[in-house]
Amino acid sequence: MTGSERSGGRTSTAHPAWLRRGVGEDVVLARDPDCGLGPEAYTIARCGGVTTVVAADEAGLLYGSFHALRLDGEHPATTHRPAVARRVMQHWDNVFVHPVMGQVERGYSGGSLFWDDGALTDDLDRVSDYARLLASTGINTVSVNNVNVHAGEARLLTDRLDEVARLAERFRRFHIRVLLSVSFAAPMTLGGLDTADPCDDRVRDWWAAATRRVYEQIPDFAGFVVKADSEGQPGPFAYGRTHADGANLLAGALAPFGGEVYWRAFVYNHRQDWRDRTTDRARAAYDTFVPLDGQFAPNVILQVKHGPIDFQAREPVSPVLLAMPRTRLAVELQATQEYTGQQRHVCYLPPMWSSVLATVGSRVEAVVTVSSAGEDQYWTGHPLAQANLYAAGRLAWDPALDPVRLLDEWARLTFPAAAVPALHEIMDGSWSVYEQYTAPLGIGFMVKPGNHYGPDVDGYEYSPWGTYHFADRDGVGVDRTVATGTGFAGQYPEPWRSRYESLDTCPDELLLFFHHVPYTHVLHSGRTVIQHIYDTHFAGADAVAAMRRRWAALSPSIVGVDLHARVARRLEEQERSSIEWRDQINTYFFRKSGIPDAHGRRIH
Amino acid sequence: MTGSERSGGRTSTAHPAWLRRGVGEDVVLARDPDCGLGPEAYTIARCGGVTTVVAADEAGLLYGSFHALRLDGEHPATTHRPAVARRVMQHWDNVFVHPVMGQVERGYSGGSLFWDDGALTDDLDRVSDYARLLASTGINTVSVNNVNVHAGEARLLTDRLDEVARLAERFRRFHIRVLLSVSFAAPMTLGGLDTADPCDDRVRDWWAAATRRVYEQIPDFAGFVVKADSEGQPGPFAYGRTHADGANLLAGALAPFGGEVYWRAFVYNHRQDWRDRTTDRARAAYDTFVPLDGQFAPNVILQVKHGPIDFQAREPVSPVLLAMPRTRLAVELQATQEYTGQQRHVCYLPPMWSSVLATVGSRVEAVVTVSSAGEDQYWTGHPLAQANLYAAGRLAWDPALDPVRLLDEWARLTFPAAAVPALHEIMDGSWSVYEQYTAPLGIGFMVKPGNHYGPDVDGYEYSPWGTYHFADRDGVGVDRTVATGTGFAGQYPEPWRSRYESLDTCPDELLLFFHHVPYTHVLHSGRTVIQHIYDTHFAGADAVAAMRRRWAALSPSIVGVDLHARVARRLEEQERSSIEWRDQINTYFFRKSGIPDAHGRRIH
Repeated sequence: MTGSERSGGRTSTAHPAWLRRGVGEDVVLARDPDCGLGPEAYTIARCGGVTTVVAADEAGLLYGSFHALRLDGEHPATTHRPAVARRVMQHWDNVFVHPVMGQVERGYSGGSLFWDDGALTDDLDRVSDYARLLASTGINTVSVNNVNVHAGEARLLTDRLDEVARLAERFRRFHIRVLLSVSFAAPMTLGGLDTADPCDDRVRDWWAAATRRVYEQIPDFAGFVVKADSEGQPGPFAYGRTHADGANLLAGALAPFGGEVYWRAFVYNHRQDWRDRTTDRARAAYDTFVPLDGQFAPNVILQVKHGPIDFQAREPVSPVLLAMPRTRLAVELQATQEYTGQQRHVCYLPPMWSSVLATVGSRVEAVVTVSSAGEDQYWTGHPLAQANLYAAGRLAWDPALDPVRLLDEWARLTFPAAAVPALHEIMDGSWSVYEQYTAPLGIGFMVKPGNHYGPDVDGYEYSPWGTYHFADRDGVGVDRTVATGTGFAGQYPEPWRSRYESLDTCPDELLLFFHHVPYTHVLHSGRTVIQHIYDTHFAGADAVAAMRRRWAALSPSIVGVDLHARVARRLEEQERSSIEWRDQINTYFFRKSGIPDAHGRRIH
Repeated sequence: MTGSERSGGRTSTAHPAWLRRGVGEDVVLARDPDCGLGPEAYTIARCGGVTTVVAADEAGLLYGSFHALRLDGEHPATTHRPAVARRVMQHWDNVFVHPVMGQVERGYSGGSLFWDDGALTDDLDRVSDYARLLASTGINTVSVNNVNVHAGEARLLTDRLDEVARLAERFRRFHIRVLLSVSFAAPMTLGGLDTADPCDDRVRDWWAAATRRVYEQIPDFAGFVVKADSEGQPGPFAYGRTHADGANLLAGALAPFGGEVYWRAFVYNHRQDWRDRTTDRARAAYDTFVPLDGQFAPNVILQVKHGPIDFQAREPVSPVLLAMPRTRLAVELQATQEYTGQQRHVCYLPPMWSSVLATVGSRVEAVVTVSSAGEDQYWTGHPLAQANLYAAGRLAWDPALDPVRLLDEWARLTFPAAAVPALHEIMDGSWSVYEQYTAPLGIGFMVKPGNHYGPDVDGYEYSPWGTYHFADRDGVGVDRTVATGTGFAGQYPEPWRSRYESLDTCPDELLLFFHHVPYTHVLHSGRTVIQHIYDTHFAGADAVAAMRRRWAALSPSIVGVDLHARVARRLEEQERSSIEWRDQINTYFFRKSGIPDAHGRRIH
């Protein structure tokens, strides 16, 4: 039962029906351009059963109305304004079903909400529902296609633009503007030019004309998202140009209309030789982009993944986010659980995101999240994964929100109160649990290549993707120190640089990200590395079993029989998978180290 | 230049044109039913430039004619008869392109010769060419569809039977009879019954009727190939029946028409738990089939892969082939190089096949080879892989043929004499070279899961496929002894049983197939296991580089520019791949063992 289903209220203004639906008491929505509140902000109070929302603009009333749904009881006047103006949800949806990646790249929630294998979806009302869902969390920008722009997707910019416009019309009703992922090679593939050189006038003219046509159809178009020179996508390197040249090209086309370009910093050598110990993928974004600080046009936003590698369960914050004071930055989070259980596992990510935002929140102008939503009836495949989608928007609005309180908020809006304690028990610590039974101490990528689900300790160890753990019979971890390693630690300002550089101060949870140590190295926790591996893997799998039991003890009638069964099945799979992780990781490191478990537990 | 292109001869009988083409001298083909030669046999002589072939049947004249093409100079009268009456080429061709396996399962030579994504090929003349090619090697039976029978392929037995008949018509011209792979579940999927129980009368009736219809259209139909209870295919286990029950069901349907059923012994648990050390995939076929010896109908041929696992570069002979005196047996070889370089690597397999046939030749009534041919202009993807296809048929005819002489025979029929020395240098030892740079001492399956190309030492180590090496920091190998292991060695009769059981007598090349030993174990060669691994991997990669250089030194004009370039590109890939194998295997075992190379070579 959501708030909107509990009752029907009455508002004193003539706003659309959806604003009135579901507020249990009378609501006064007062738009006052002179109230002194900035854009999107609002003041809300509830007194004597009457809720009042005051805002300077429609957007503020919208967000205040959703806030009203979250209120419980009387409430003194409080004012709320977003921490960042750009709260973005990006979709990796393909227009055509991709032969390997499917309809949604790294999508675990069924087909695309927007595209139906080649065509715009018939179900635009579902798009409206999704827009309302996003707006209720505070999201105000959305990209509607994959950053890997294939031939079919590229045409959204030109002869299929009307389809984007139809989506934008649905999102606009909820104060959400649309972004489009574009291909840097579009002047060639769509425009018939023989180059996409960002310093070529014909290329510039082509982008200017294409962009103008976009704004003719979508006046509030938000801009472009670009993945360039990354994992095979075209980019400015082909012409000996910098990424500033590339980004500024598109920025120039967008500037007359107030649009912006989200230029991704996810650039690295994905054809690395595993024998080459001098190249470190973690360094790549910094090495490419930090020298360009100050060279980007005012309407370029450099979009940086929150960690230096790629959405592993544990990474340090990307040093790029700490090193470009003269560049507008966005931090990129991933709600779709590519490396965190693919929505078959419960893994509530806001504790991780909170810690990232606590570090970088004041330095970024945008929070971007990769969406986890799809055609699935519960939106996110795993019904409990909705909490990640919800919290992504809420944290973009206010990074200081406490993750447990956010979970509480989502749970109460979604389920009867009787379900809430179980949800806390299962979800609050689930990211830590996931980390426990998967990758210890900051090691990443011990997953099956390609689909990224399930353990394969050496799966990427001899691959070209630059993701290694270097485990041998004596020890494990990547030496990224300045003193003896790749120097990645030196990309951080103080105090991080010294903290990560030294074994004495490097946090346990990132030890193997920064250091190669013997299995007998003693952690700050007092345990050896090898015993930590064993202990956490046994504990993690046990915790999943407890999660499954806790859910089983919750009466299906409270949450609905179908939903209960869906979650129960996924918890069974999570338990199976956690045991597989536990046993493979423990066996792998026992075979390598030869050191038995101090507690004599079964290692195969 | 083939013999058939060298000149045009003249024959004294009225045989079809293809028999006359390409024989350099006059040929007398004399069919004499009373000559005392058995079926398919012939006597050939060349005297004074006139070649005479005498045979009791058309088939004998056919094979004698091909023999005439191989003659060089005068030749006293010699008589030739096939070692086995059933010389079979089996195709793993899908009628429809399979989403994972493609048009030809484990096919590395382009599309199917028979099927064009759903339909019978338009190019039946190419099928005739292929039939002639097979006949020239001595093959007289062919199956035209994959042993994994999907829904579309199943219908070849019923409403698409006319397509099989059209293929059979082409093969018949070259004395080749056609087999069809069928699904054990056909009575349900095609017949609408609610069971496929081999002891159910309705099922028996269904098979009898279906088979009768086959013989109405294809009177010389050879029979069925069946993969049952194997890797997900349906079978008699579902009904609590034995594989004798299953095979005899189909045998009963075929018996009235003289047909036979090739029942594959490739039955094992492919959902094994890697933690379970008591189950040994190597044991599976013996455990399933040997207790049934004597229970199979007279027209059942049990088709057994030559090794106990699955076509690895080195396996012992399957003990099933040595343990079923009251069962008619076929040995199955694999010309398509699934685990031996996928026709991107030169790997001349007859030395392996010869040794298998020397052991089991007198015990089998059929030699079955999985084909490597496809739409490719050179038939086999790698032009030099033709030699495997050619030799497969020739060895089925005469297992005593020397592999090097066979290579010579193929090379002289295929290329100008000037190319022959290089072909020997490159190909004679290429199987040993492949073994050197890939899997040492009888370890198998250190390949990338799924596509089976390239190294991944732990790729199958924690998988459900039952293919493990158990490498840890101390040692490597699978203990399959009776004394301390899985007992697989005990499935062999003497003298193999004792030879494999004892470390003292187990051949080096199979050591890790039968024993788990420390890296410091000293081989009969005098080297330690770890040093053997290093030495062979360095030597193997060096040998590939020498192969590539040897080919480069051969003038393209001798073999044709296009063919030369094709082989050169594949040798480049083989060299790259051999280095990758060398480095990954050496690094993996160095990291595990910690023992440096005695010669101080670079291990990454």
